[in-house]
Amino acid sequence: MKTLDDITTIEQMEADTAKLKQIACDVCAETWEDRNKNQTPHCKFGEDGICCKNCSMGPCRITAKASRGICGADAHAIAGRNYLRTIAAGTSSHSDHAREILHVLRNTSAEGSYHVRDEQKLINLAQEWGVATEGRDIYDIAHDVADVGLMEFGKPEGFQRFIKRAPPERQKVWHEQDIEPRAIDREVVTSLHMTHMGNTADPEALVRQGLRTGLSNGWGGSMIGTEITDILFGTPTVRTTEGNLGVLEKEMVNIVVHGHDPAFSEMVVTAAEVKELVDYAKTKGAKGINIVGLCCTANEVAMRHGVRMAGNFLQQENVLLTGAVEMMCVDVQCIFPALAPLSECFHTKFVTSSPIARIPGSIYVEFKTDTAFEQAKGLIKLAIDNYQNRDAQKLFIPATKQNAIVGYPCEQIIKHLDGVTNSHVDELGSYRPAVDAIKAGVLRGAVGIVGCNNPRVRPDYSHFEIMKELLRNDVLIVATGCAAQVATKAGLLDKEAKYLCGAGLRRVCELVNIPPILHMGACIDISRILLLVSGIARDWGVDNTQLPIVGCAPEWMSEKAVSIANYVVSSGIDVYLGIEPQVKGSSQMMELITEGTRKITGAGYIINKDPQDLVKSILDGIEAKRAALGI
Amino acid sequence: MKTLDDITTIEQMEADTAKLKQIACDVCAETWEDRNKNQTPHCKFGEDGICCKNCSMGPCRITAKASRGICGADAHAIAGRNYLRTIAAGTSSHSDHAREILHVLRNTSAEGSYHVRDEQKLINLAQEWGVATEGRDIYDIAHDVADVGLMEFGKPEGFQRFIKRAPPERQKVWHEQDIEPRAIDREVVTSLHMTHMGNTADPEALVRQGLRTGLSNGWGGSMIGTEITDILFGTPTVRTTEGNLGVLEKEMVNIVVHGHDPAFSEMVVTAAEVKELVDYAKTKGAKGINIVGLCCTANEVAMRHGVRMAGNFLQQENVLLTGAVEMMCVDVQCIFPALAPLSECFHTKFVTSSPIARIPGSIYVEFKTDTAFEQAKGLIKLAIDNYQNRDAQKLFIPATKQNAIVGYPCEQIIKHLDGVTNSHVDELGSYRPAVDAIKAGVLRGAVGIVGCNNPRVRPDYSHFEIMKELLRNDVLIVATGCAAQVATKAGLLDKEAKYLCGAGLRRVCELVNIPPILHMGACIDISRILLLVSGIARDWGVDNTQLPIVGCAPEWMSEKAVSIANYVVSSGIDVYLGIEPQVKGSSQMMELITEGTRKITGAGYIINKDPQDLVKSILDGIEAKRAALGI
Repeated sequence: MKTLDDITTIEQMEADTAKLKQIACDVCAETWEDRNKNQTPHCKFGEDGICCKNCSMGPCRITAKASRGICGADAHAIAGRNYLRTIAAGTSSHSDHAREILHVLRNTSAEGSYHVRDEQKLINLAQEWGVATEGRDIYDIAHDVADVGLMEFGKPEGFQRFIKRAPPERQKVWHEQDIEPRAIDREVVTSLHMTHMGNTADPEALVRQGLRTGLSNGWGGSMIGTEITDILFGTPTVRTTEGNLGVLEKEMVNIVVHGHDPAFSEMVVTAAEVKELVDYAKTKGAKGINIVGLCCTANEVAMRHGVRMAGNFLQQENVLLTGAVEMMCVDVQCIFPALAPLSECFHTKFVTSSPIARIPGSIYVEFKTDTAFEQAKGLIKLAIDNYQNRDAQKLFIPATKQNAIVGYPCEQIIKHLDGVTNSHVDELGSYRPAVDAIKAGVLRGAVGIVGCNNPRVRPDYSHFEIMKELLRNDVLIVATGCAAQVATKAGLLDKEAKYLCGAGLRRVCELVNIPPILHMGACIDISRILLLVSGIARDWGVDNTQLPIVGCAPEWMSEKAVSIANYVVSSGIDVYLGIEPQVKGSSQMMELITEGTRKITGAGYIINKDPQDLVKSILDGIEAKRAALGI
Repeated sequence: MKTLDDITTIEQMEADTAKLKQIACDVCAETWEDRNKNQTPHCKFGEDGICCKNCSMGPCRITAKASRGICGADAHAIAGRNYLRTIAAGTSSHSDHAREILHVLRNTSAEGSYHVRDEQKLINLAQEWGVATEGRDIYDIAHDVADVGLMEFGKPEGFQRFIKRAPPERQKVWHEQDIEPRAIDREVVTSLHMTHMGNTADPEALVRQGLRTGLSNGWGGSMIGTEITDILFGTPTVRTTEGNLGVLEKEMVNIVVHGHDPAFSEMVVTAAEVKELVDYAKTKGAKGINIVGLCCTANEVAMRHGVRMAGNFLQQENVLLTGAVEMMCVDVQCIFPALAPLSECFHTKFVTSSPIARIPGSIYVEFKTDTAFEQAKGLIKLAIDNYQNRDAQKLFIPATKQNAIVGYPCEQIIKHLDGVTNSHVDELGSYRPAVDAIKAGVLRGAVGIVGCNNPRVRPDYSHFEIMKELLRNDVLIVATGCAAQVATKAGLLDKEAKYLCGAGLRRVCELVNIPPILHMGACIDISRILLLVSGIARDWGVDNTQLPIVGCAPEWMSEKAVSIANYVVSSGIDVYLGIEPQVKGSSQMMELITEGTRKITGAGYIINKDPQDLVKSILDGIEAKRAALGI
């Protein structure tokens, strides 16, 4: 029976980090802690969003003396433009990842490296998109679906196809507010155009375009990415795994996969199972090959293969500091360039694989779909050969790890809910049991906790505090990305963690046989949360915005997170942020993102750096939604 | 006979500005000079390109103490990322402008506001793009061509169609260097993805993507924009007009069109010719309606209608300060938000028309293709009604203006060259006479002078000094954008300006019957210069990079300019810059943009803030190219 004593506390995690930090000192390596110190205090103009670098007349900065830039842009225009560009860059990143995945689907074949693993999901999507399926070869269907998907990025007319999946009330809001997302790339380009020197200076127009651009990510790029990834590599199912640095193995060849796009890591994972490579590792004195994940790539391979997770964003250097990593293979996004010089302090081979993420000092192996599996095997051999170069003097693997149950996409949640549905009375395949539990008050509501780490707050601490408090208050959590990995490391993805919950949530966990925090995937999979919330709204007969369900990103850091926050708010779901978007220098922007968007989408941001205060406002928000529903 | 005494000097232009500045003081209005003073000195980190705002861990800045940002990005990564984002934003702006023009073409009809004016150009383009033309209605062809053009922004596969227009040697370079531009929007999104936190930190990879993204503008967006604009509104022909503030008329209703996309201004110009509106103006005591242009919109309407040009970028506030403007109608790009508060100091109606450029304090009339003409007539009536609100106390129109010959697209240059071709011996329709003149040394070479104004240097001065010196040295100039307007204001677009030229250039001007500076259009029309240079290279049988022809942007300011510089360099043409790209904080980036790109495209930047030094290096560069050709 798990109690608070059985979970790994932030203090314990920090103790491991301190030991690894000592190794860093010994090898004269700097880590983010050093760099963060050197970068503090940050430029106030940048933090407040009132520094404009959008033309070479500047940079211009808003001060008491200078209330406008050279062109006349004021604080509101500048902060608004910077904010929209942030959303554009985040949308680009998630969506371009999805585009790459579509190209992989376009290149699948029965004989090639990549196959269709979830045929039913492909057929469902083909039917949704009007692609003929009857009597056709699955790969022909796959290629046509890929072609349709690729057009979502560049079609000259029309809106994102997936917006039809939202509740009708929501679609009406988007239509009336004129924020239905067009082609994904076009929304990005429009955003850059609007923010170019001499264009939009009206913060509301910039915020509106931010909502639309966000929607093109959430109900466009990200959702496409998730769907196609499931088709290619299988829709995740519930699996048991482990998380934290203790998943590295002293006597095995350790290979870390890190990044976001699973096309590369899937091949590495598959190649590591090849018997001749495992045998080869044994000839080199290792007991085998140990693939572990980092960041969102970890979430991807954990959910589909049970691959163990070494950690989240701010743990990426720690993993190398163990001295136990023969190879780190990275794909795209959130990869510290610092890993290159750091890997040189050890025997670690640092391998980059994507033209999108070229890092000096890495071994660059450009991954191609037609040679992917062979390339992966080659890399694994290289890692095995590197095992003998390990320096025992520098070796330290913290023992810390926790059990975790992962892999709760909507399909698995529905499946679990079906298990508590009386099929004689109620229809299967719905969220009704969840709706009933919320209506009854057994569950007070649900929160999607997502996002990164950020040195602006104590790493993992805000996530952890908020999660504990929500569980205690009978609020179910769904988590993705680095947030999900905090839960993993802490032990909160264990079914035993139900004993940390209030009586209502505990009962739900027992009945439905789930942990109190459901791991839904990588950050691109927040699109799954959109579908979950929309499904609940549909089964409830209300709009998303009425539900006692909110989003929370306590430690977000990336531009992707701002894009996500925008599609969540656009979807009618309040977003609680522990880090301020960098627009504080504009009162109008602060009003727009916290209140102004409510008039457009019915939702907005609630911002508080203090996790205790933030979770209190989440609980208040949930109760207010309940009251409005009369439950 | 014109001499140096007949041209308007920078000092004379500055004297007018000083008088208008006094009016600004009288009405308590600030202008860019005040704001520039308040913004000086600029942030050194921003100027050097080593401030990173690409995630909310930062901003991070590179200092002696902090050689890396929190993620480990160093000065080279940060400056490279900022540089690529600048190119992405510039590419977005030009190309999105082109997309809007394509949508206008998509909506043309025999009965509507917009028509096909250059049918032959449409048919040529249709044939180039594989659109059937035989026996078809011109509007059916137009719509199909628009559809093909729109796909250049979002097609999932293939490269920009127009790259086939480049010399074969150039196409080979692009292919071998893997910088053939894909769909325009995709290049932008790839650029944002690459520069997202945790992606590319290798400056060379960032610079290469910059070249490719630039190409998607020059041989994609901008070239499409120019072609379609010609099809819609007519390919420009040689026209006589006037330029500078003296084109405003004391006794007429003055309406200024300002921005870049001529779809709006064309309607305003056309509506102002409607007899009932002219008569209406007379009933209000005015002698008529006087439309004048500002910025690139001025270039567009001057080339097609002879509409007079009030000035360039840093003159936009001066125009309002005359107190003589009843209405300023703006479309997109380079529009000071400062115009809104400034217009409130006068009777001027400040009208915005595009969702891309929303400016607080303006009258917003969203321009729609199907109601464009009616909307334009409504605005003109509003301007006429406003005539009576003019305040005589605040009225001051400087008398300064100059004659100008404008409208030299490639077609007109060819036509003029045909005039000096002996058609019994040589083929018509080629650049051979120009090639021969350069080979003979009568012309030493040619320079495209383009770009904006920038308060970092004395406005217009660098343009002016460089132009004079080049003419004196028998170097023909082609000009676009704000640079072309400096020449207009100075009187250098007058055929009489040949007397400022060296003997060789003067002889060419006389023979071919052209001014020594050829006005080729707006900044989007730098694509015309690409075709001109490529045409000369083709007729010479060499690659662009061998020609004694270079580009120069002495006072550039906008992100568009950086995108342009990249497509010019990618096209093998050296670019001489009077303003530094903001990457100085990275030695690697400085090396890459000045020398590194030479290994990729054969061209690079030469940067010098001093116009005398810059023009000297241009002349040296031209002579070096000549020497290499053995001429």
